Amino acid sequence: MNYETPLFFQVMQYAVRAERDVIDMVSGNPDWEPPAALREALHEYADLESDRFQYPPSEGLRELREGIAARRGVDEGQVVVTNGAGEANYLAMARALERESGSEVLLTDPVYPYYPGKTSMLGGSQRFVPVGEDGQLEPEAVRAATSEETAAIVVNTPNNPTGAVYPAETMRELGEIAEAYDAILVSDEVYDHYDLSGEFSSALEVDSGNRIVTNAFSKSLAITGFRVGYAIFPEELVADAKSRHMLVNVAGSRPAQYAVSRALHETGPEYYETNRELLRERVDTFTAALEDAGAEYTRPDGAFYVMARFEDFPGTLENTERLIDGAGVAGMPGEAFGSAREEWLRFALVTPRLEEAADRLVAYFG
Amino acid sequence: MNYETPLFFQVMQYAVRAERDVIDMVSGNPDWEPPAALREALHEYADLESDRFQYPPSEGLRELREGIAARRGVDEGQVVVTNGAGEANYLAMARALERESGSEVLLTDPVYPYYPGKTSMLGGSQRFVPVGEDGQLEPEAVRAATSEETAAIVVNTPNNPTGAVYPAETMRELGEIAEAYDAILVSDEVYDHYDLSGEFSSALEVDSGNRIVTNAFSKSLAITGFRVGYAIFPEELVADAKSRHMLVNVAGSRPAQYAVSRALHETGPEYYETNRELLRERVDTFTAALEDAGAEYTRPDGAFYVMARFEDFPGTLENTERLIDGAGVAGMPGEAFGSAREEWLRFALVTPRLEEAADRLVAYFG
Repeated sequence: MNYETPLFFQVMQYAVRAERDVIDMVSGNPDWEPPAALREALHEYADLESDRFQYPPSEGLRELREGIAARRGVDEGQVVVTNGAGEANYLAMARALERESGSEVLLTDPVYPYYPGKTSMLGGSQRFVPVGEDGQLEPEAVRAATSEETAAIVVNTPNNPTGAVYPAETMRELGEIAEAYDAILVSDEVYDHYDLSGEFSSALEVDSGNRIVTNAFSKSLAITGFRVGYAIFPEELVADAKSRHMLVNVAGSRPAQYAVSRALHETGPEYYETNRELLRERVDTFTAALEDAGAEYTRPDGAFYVMARFEDFPGTLENTERLIDGAGVAGMPGEAFGSAREEWLRFALVTPRLEEAADRLVAYFG
Repeated sequence: MNYETPLFFQVMQYAVRAERDVIDMVSGNPDWEPPAALREALHEYADLESDRFQYPPSEGLRELREGIAARRGVDEGQVVVTNGAGEANYLAMARALERESGSEVLLTDPVYPYYPGKTSMLGGSQRFVPVGEDGQLEPEAVRAATSEETAAIVVNTPNNPTGAVYPAETMRELGEIAEAYDAILVSDEVYDHYDLSGEFSSALEVDSGNRIVTNAFSKSLAITGFRVGYAIFPEELVADAKSRHMLVNVAGSRPAQYAVSRALHETGPEYYETNRELLRERVDTFTAALEDAGAEYTRPDGAFYVMARFEDFPGTLENTERLIDGAGVAGMPGEAFGSAREEWLRFALVTPRLEEAADRLVAYFG
């Protein structure tokens, strides 16, 4: 079985091997600082007694789970701390596919490429619902695609790659559809701290035993390499998810969990607001340049990405490589995200060299 | 699907809730110090630029993989750094079961309880081969149990719970059997640095495309909570294993990988020898006490565990709890490891209070 390695890696390797200087706008690694408390907590951890270097509880350090549960308004027993959002989504999708309530996973097009890969790995099949031109997901389109075969509806809000933020009404209707077909709504909300619209609505607000929310500190604390995430399960689904977590990973990494727990506790809202403000400025700078370059583009309501369509320059891997060599800017081909955005390229706004990248695109296409 | 939560957790919870003082000999958490370089490396990491806090390569930090490959005499491309031996065994067993070369996993009895749990989770079925009274696995018994249905033969050497170390001849024959039936020999060698016999032989010495070796730094560097392990795959099997690793976990935790990489590089053989020597002394102390208590017992050739059989005191969960309340010593019931050692209890020699525990057992049984 070959699960399709995401194109990310191929593009990044091409960029690294390029002969010229290339500005990396491929992957969603924040280029801003993590909270100061995180670094302090790592120092503190390094000097703890060695019994603190041994297995944490499988479902996560107690104080971290308590912090998550308090912030999200759920019972601590529903929270499983995972190895990033990656494992959280894996556990959620596995749970949905094991319930013998269908084997089809309903995904959006465009889609975050790991979801279809996980679906195949777990023995399910994919069914795609195209989103609107504005990136919004129409609940009626989801309802029309749902059947007794539907095991899960997997959404991501704020969305990678479209930048859409789904309103409360969409989340409520998705929850209703999931219940009506006894499917599981999996809502990946890893960009929740980067809602630029004020319209973000968590699936946690949907009161349902058919919904799992996944998240991570990778983006919100600017530590994608720490691998600390979590999933919030309904009471009926949490025990088996914990068992799978234990059988796959035993537990997550304790130094990372310790540092995240401390940082979560000690970091105030201004940290998150400063990063959102930086992102807002970058959206303005980058979209203004795309305007100058004569491109069509999206203005994201949330997350890190702008999509652009240049005339006669479809979003293929070949054109992405051409742009690396010709302009010194590495983006992601739209075709990596399904068929609905094949004409587009995606640019991640997480580089301090954003203005330079914008200038290069204007010079190349303008 | 319920995957059977290992009994470990039940026993530990019982011990924690007990009214009296209890000496924990349940789980295999080393109670000795990690290498000094590990703590120093964590401090160093805490002050690195924030780009070093982002995703490491999915298959592990380059310098760590190089260190592992050099020490194990394999190609770096064969090494996948995992979230502990737990994920390494999961990847190895998944790979074996996906090859459409059988769906049966051959395990020893007694067995490390995670292996049967992983087998069920991955859709396989278990077949058990009892080991001899001395804990040795007879290749002929394995051959007799192997068939076209065999997907994997999973062994652990040095062994938990028996303490057996399999000689080179056993490993060679297991490799031959795996090849003859196109099964995968999975050799979990997480206790390799705690070989007390000098007879340990890694499955890496078996030159075969049908063998996967798993390991971790959890025990060797006394950091079970860091979750850094690895698997070494044959060339033909490594690509799909890397894909599964990426789709499940994206990558392992970077601060932990960084610290392990530095510690691996800077820690000399005396660190490991000191810990082995401590373990040797503890084996002597504890088995002498068991002798005084009139018990039958194993003298381990490797790993952390001594098994004991007390008269009219079979290794049930009930008796384990009775021993916690009556003697203040928590062990593991033999029945947790299958049917072959149901009469026995397992004690982990990783407590500084070992002599006290031995005295308590003598007082209780003697």
